[in-house]
Amino acid sequence: MGRLSALFDPDAVAVVGATDREGAVGRAILENLRDGFTGDVVPINPSRDEVLGLECYPDASSAPPIDLAVVVVPPEIVIESIRDLAEAGTENVVVITAGFSETGSEGAERERQLRAVADEHDLNVVGPNSLGIMATSNGMNATFGPESALEGSISFMSQSGAFITAVLDWANEQGIGFRDVVSLGNKTVLDETDFVREWGDDPDTDVIIGYLEDVGNGQGFIEAAREVTEDTPIVLVKSGRTDAGAQAASSHTGAIAGSERAYEAGLEQAGVIRARSVQELFDYARALAGLPEPESDGVAVVTNAGGPGVLTTDAVGDSRLEMASFTDETIDTLATAMPDEANVYNPIDAIGDADVDRFGEALEIALEDPNVGSAVVVAAPTAVLSYDDLAERVIETLEAHETPVVTCLMGGKRARDAEETLREAGVPNYFDPSRAVSGLDALARFRDIRERTVDQPVTFDVDRERAREILARVRHRDDNRLGVESMNLLEAYGIPTPAGEIVDDPDRARELAEGIEGDVVMKIVSPDISHKSDIGGVKVGVADEDVYDAYEDLISRARNYQPDATIVGVQIQERLDLETATETIVGMNRDPQFGPLLLFGLGGIFVEILEDTSVRVAPIGEGEAREMVDEIRAAPLLRGARGRDPADVEGVVETIQRLSQLVTDFPSILELDINPLVAGPEGVQAIDLRLTVDADELDADEPDTEEP
Amino acid sequence: MGRLSALFDPDAVAVVGATDREGAVGRAILENLRDGFTGDVVPINPSRDEVLGLECYPDASSAPPIDLAVVVVPPEIVIESIRDLAEAGTENVVVITAGFSETGSEGAERERQLRAVADEHDLNVVGPNSLGIMATSNGMNATFGPESALEGSISFMSQSGAFITAVLDWANEQGIGFRDVVSLGNKTVLDETDFVREWGDDPDTDVIIGYLEDVGNGQGFIEAAREVTEDTPIVLVKSGRTDAGAQAASSHTGAIAGSERAYEAGLEQAGVIRARSVQELFDYARALAGLPEPESDGVAVVTNAGGPGVLTTDAVGDSRLEMASFTDETIDTLATAMPDEANVYNPIDAIGDADVDRFGEALEIALEDPNVGSAVVVAAPTAVLSYDDLAERVIETLEAHETPVVTCLMGGKRARDAEETLREAGVPNYFDPSRAVSGLDALARFRDIRERTVDQPVTFDVDRERAREILARVRHRDDNRLGVESMNLLEAYGIPTPAGEIVDDPDRARELAEGIEGDVVMKIVSPDISHKSDIGGVKVGVADEDVYDAYEDLISRARNYQPDATIVGVQIQERLDLETATETIVGMNRDPQFGPLLLFGLGGIFVEILEDTSVRVAPIGEGEAREMVDEIRAAPLLRGARGRDPADVEGVVETIQRLSQLVTDFPSILELDINPLVAGPEGVQAIDLRLTVDADELDADEPDTEEP
Repeated sequence: MGRLSALFDPDAVAVVGATDREGAVGRAILENLRDGFTGDVVPINPSRDEVLGLECYPDASSAPPIDLAVVVVPPEIVIESIRDLAEAGTENVVVITAGFSETGSEGAERERQLRAVADEHDLNVVGPNSLGIMATSNGMNATFGPESALEGSISFMSQSGAFITAVLDWANEQGIGFRDVVSLGNKTVLDETDFVREWGDDPDTDVIIGYLEDVGNGQGFIEAAREVTEDTPIVLVKSGRTDAGAQAASSHTGAIAGSERAYEAGLEQAGVIRARSVQELFDYARALAGLPEPESDGVAVVTNAGGPGVLTTDAVGDSRLEMASFTDETIDTLATAMPDEANVYNPIDAIGDADVDRFGEALEIALEDPNVGSAVVVAAPTAVLSYDDLAERVIETLEAHETPVVTCLMGGKRARDAEETLREAGVPNYFDPSRAVSGLDALARFRDIRERTVDQPVTFDVDRERAREILARVRHRDDNRLGVESMNLLEAYGIPTPAGEIVDDPDRARELAEGIEGDVVMKIVSPDISHKSDIGGVKVGVADEDVYDAYEDLISRARNYQPDATIVGVQIQERLDLETATETIVGMNRDPQFGPLLLFGLGGIFVEILEDTSVRVAPIGEGEAREMVDEIRAAPLLRGARGRDPADVEGVVETIQRLSQLVTDFPSILELDINPLVAGPEGVQAIDLRLTVDADELDADEPDTEEP
Repeated sequence: MGRLSALFDPDAVAVVGATDREGAVGRAILENLRDGFTGDVVPINPSRDEVLGLECYPDASSAPPIDLAVVVVPPEIVIESIRDLAEAGTENVVVITAGFSETGSEGAERERQLRAVADEHDLNVVGPNSLGIMATSNGMNATFGPESALEGSISFMSQSGAFITAVLDWANEQGIGFRDVVSLGNKTVLDETDFVREWGDDPDTDVIIGYLEDVGNGQGFIEAAREVTEDTPIVLVKSGRTDAGAQAASSHTGAIAGSERAYEAGLEQAGVIRARSVQELFDYARALAGLPEPESDGVAVVTNAGGPGVLTTDAVGDSRLEMASFTDETIDTLATAMPDEANVYNPIDAIGDADVDRFGEALEIALEDPNVGSAVVVAAPTAVLSYDDLAERVIETLEAHETPVVTCLMGGKRARDAEETLREAGVPNYFDPSRAVSGLDALARFRDIRERTVDQPVTFDVDRERAREILARVRHRDDNRLGVESMNLLEAYGIPTPAGEIVDDPDRARELAEGIEGDVVMKIVSPDISHKSDIGGVKVGVADEDVYDAYEDLISRARNYQPDATIVGVQIQERLDLETATETIVGMNRDPQFGPLLLFGLGGIFVEILEDTSVRVAPIGEGEAREMVDEIRAAPLLRGARGRDPADVEGVVETIQRLSQLVTDFPSILELDINPLVAGPEGVQAIDLRLTVDADELDADEPDTEEP
């Protein structure tokens, strides 16, 4: 696939299926192109010589050179038309036509063919089932929607065409402009990851926004978005967040959405700022498109109205920002400049009779304060305050400062002209104080995303060959499951397990127990018995002299419970001091979009009742593993709350990383739980293990020949 | 104080301090009244004969009869002016003048005088420091704000005048109307509780909304709001939610805000719907003012656009509502009426080429479904759909149904006329699907509030006289604290405590232990030693034969720790089986606004680290006590999760109610903690107690002569 920029900057655009029939999509697109596009527009239709006054060609080979083709022919001849275009040298195609995978098996086969012809000719294909694309830099509206976008620096992709028409109608009224707009359609060839990369490289795109119902390749998206968000913010509405929504999304696009927790983790790891509604999407985007980055989290609030000032302060309290603490110098300067009744502490209340000069002066003084990283100007209408003049004054003040400022000029018609003046200067105005603060909050979030360092995953020295052999045992199992008998899988990846082993004879059991200090733990090992405790298949604190009898007892319990069970033997483990230790759970399951999703939590009620867990998409580095431990609510328990000795948190962090490496190395591992991983002051130990392995995937687990 | 309705429906309104001086507040009010008020406007000013063409009187006694006076004279002569008005028979006064308690001690004294003159003459006084009041039914704008409200059914109070001017400017643009508007000012006489009562009785007020920075009398407000919300919804923005906001509010109004948790609990108990922003306030109010109540929580979504349909479904998933499950009949009818490509399951996607007829038909079919309690119409702009016609069609459809419907006609200018048509019919339109659903959610919340039954607190048979005597012991304490030696306070109120007592001699200790089955628990009892465990002052599981020595050891430990400590003795308690029981905490502290705030949680990490607690303002009935237990996240632990025997939850619920009665009976109890209250399968027992008593309040704890 070639450079995508050609999609948005063609010299000549063809409409394949152009027509002058009223109400036809092929006419709507042609009209939209004719009305604004600065390049050539080429209708293609074998049954017309001329369409809307433009010369019409029967096919691509007879037409002049075409950089971008918009295809609106019936579904049955889409593939043929694209082949014709490719042979004539066209590299960029937007398929408007519907009737592909969203409609059943015939359509799915057609979509497969579309992918094949694109691969064969190295084509950039948008769609099918797309509304089209726009580029405001050259006036190109290659969609059949009723509105063209205004010029701006926001690039916008959407998995719903209707979302685009709805947003553009509104954005045009609000004066919000765009750079490129793409209706992704079925994403057969080009998807969100491609456009994220393209716009990340585009110096004229300040913000990337999108509406998505799924992310096709989660790992690829994370990688691309991480790079792009080093410079360009990405704000997304990902719908299908709730169970009901996911079901609706699936029936809308045919895509199977992964779990919301995977999206939450994956998009966060990708550096994406997530919006929950259309309004939030643009509240964030407007701030990110026009304002500089805040250097610190201190916010100054300047107002003429006590109540709205308090509301703004609440909104700051709810955000990641904080009210700036003014220096004594600032307070003195304000006290001199403001009347006695004014409040010179933050929020600055210049009181109801404040005119533009007093307002402006208060803002200037606040922006000089070294503790102020951003500011909100909040105004209520009064007889002495002109919003229009205030807007001019705010813009003037900003020219001398590199500090982001948003405004909240409360009111209706009274605020409209001022709002437009501010917008033209890149200052977003919001009606509601909480939305104004959320705009600043988005700036601070993006600054944090830019500044974060994502650790490269550590590559631990592991015994991959041994792990492969252990996993291969699953071929002899009917249910694809492995259990405690495979604890040496963890050993192979350097995750500590208690001393001990599995034996199949009571004398050997005693011998082994005598070699272990103190009492031992004994567990029946049988692939057919999952809930060992329920049948009395676990004995804790067995003294050496009782080990022989305990062995016999465990075997007979297992036999009684299930006479035909395969019994591997009995595991003899050293007994850990659980009084001073904490049980944790480290696990993984594979998400259809994002792949291996790691989970961490404390054992027992914490996971089962309080649902106090953290998740990340693997592979992860040390920083993200540590975040997983720190972000559970019960984290202080591990760190030594309530007089306990702190657990070996570093050991937990390392275990999570080693598990991340294991599940990344072996795509055949579908699910895995270390439960519990006991974390005591002296270290961690994996006590029990269950995993599900896809035997068919075992061959895909190729040895890494570059392994250190 | 007389009926407040006279405030809003006067025949004659005087402006005391009327003037024609440009820019003066006394002129602005007079102009506002003159321009709209249907009654008489009477200027009063001793230095004018005529103001703005109206005859002006030197004082109230020489003027015609005045039903309502708006006072704008300088602060020094406000009291005198009001006295003059009262003597002339005026009962209703709005004090615009500022310079009262918000400005320091002189102002506070003036405010005290204002309260006294109001009491003396039984006056209704709004303010001081108020923007004024409005009543749209008679065109009365008795404020100095720049805007008059449109007519409507929302009554609106605000503790910030600027909030009113900001909201009205915006609401006028949006076409949102009001019934009465009140700027509360300093709330010296009339406050939020008075207006809640007044508007609750007013048949023309459909919704009460407000902006508050504090609630003066929390208990009175809860009582009034509970009654009013049996018919009329109350939606409030209470600012100062965050620490920073509370500080800002306090510097704005001089009021000391109570804790946010008390407001959260108190307003919820009052039946108030709380909005977090101006936008939410009106998103809720618009739905509540115009729409019928949903009979069930099932929502139908009807759209022409897949993506927005999914977003709406997500919003339903986030709310208390749920997507309606259509009957087979509905699905069959839809399948017949809609094209094949349409989705006839909820959300109904009538697809992009849906015209008004198809849209309308889909809505009609959905509204016939018995599982549908409300509906959202979500539309994206297309060439074949007229929003104006769709609006008409929605309104027609609604006439035949008692089901609330909101619309989300996405877009800008294209939606404006339709939005106005819908508004006139009482149907709120929202740009964002999530806001449309939040409107429906507010309706369902109000239905639940209306339908709830608030239990009357049970009056248990208690020994109030004994409790009084125990509390009176605090007179002999320097620090106002009582501890475990006062456990019989709990006994007096029927809260179980372990068998045992406090003894001051080791022989008596052994004798007592021998009378208790099993081992005992022994604790040092000293008012000077709070953290008994830290000094080894607690012994658990002492056998009868060791009790004598243990006694001596406890005493000597206490002596060593603090030689001058007052030692009451040693408490001997039966030992409870803590293996099968759960430690809980039941406590109370007194909030400045709401009074006794009860707290419940599980002991240890649950309260200290996970902050998993529930609170309610006392007194509470059985239902609210049970809610307190059920709403903590760890509640399943008490109910018998993970194979444990369920604890005696009824015992916990009763204990909370008995504590509610105790702290309501004795305002002298400032703080009280039963920690732990042990809840086992067989019952509950209070193990330890700490409380703080205000000795000066003891006399206020009068015996209730009506006690059963």
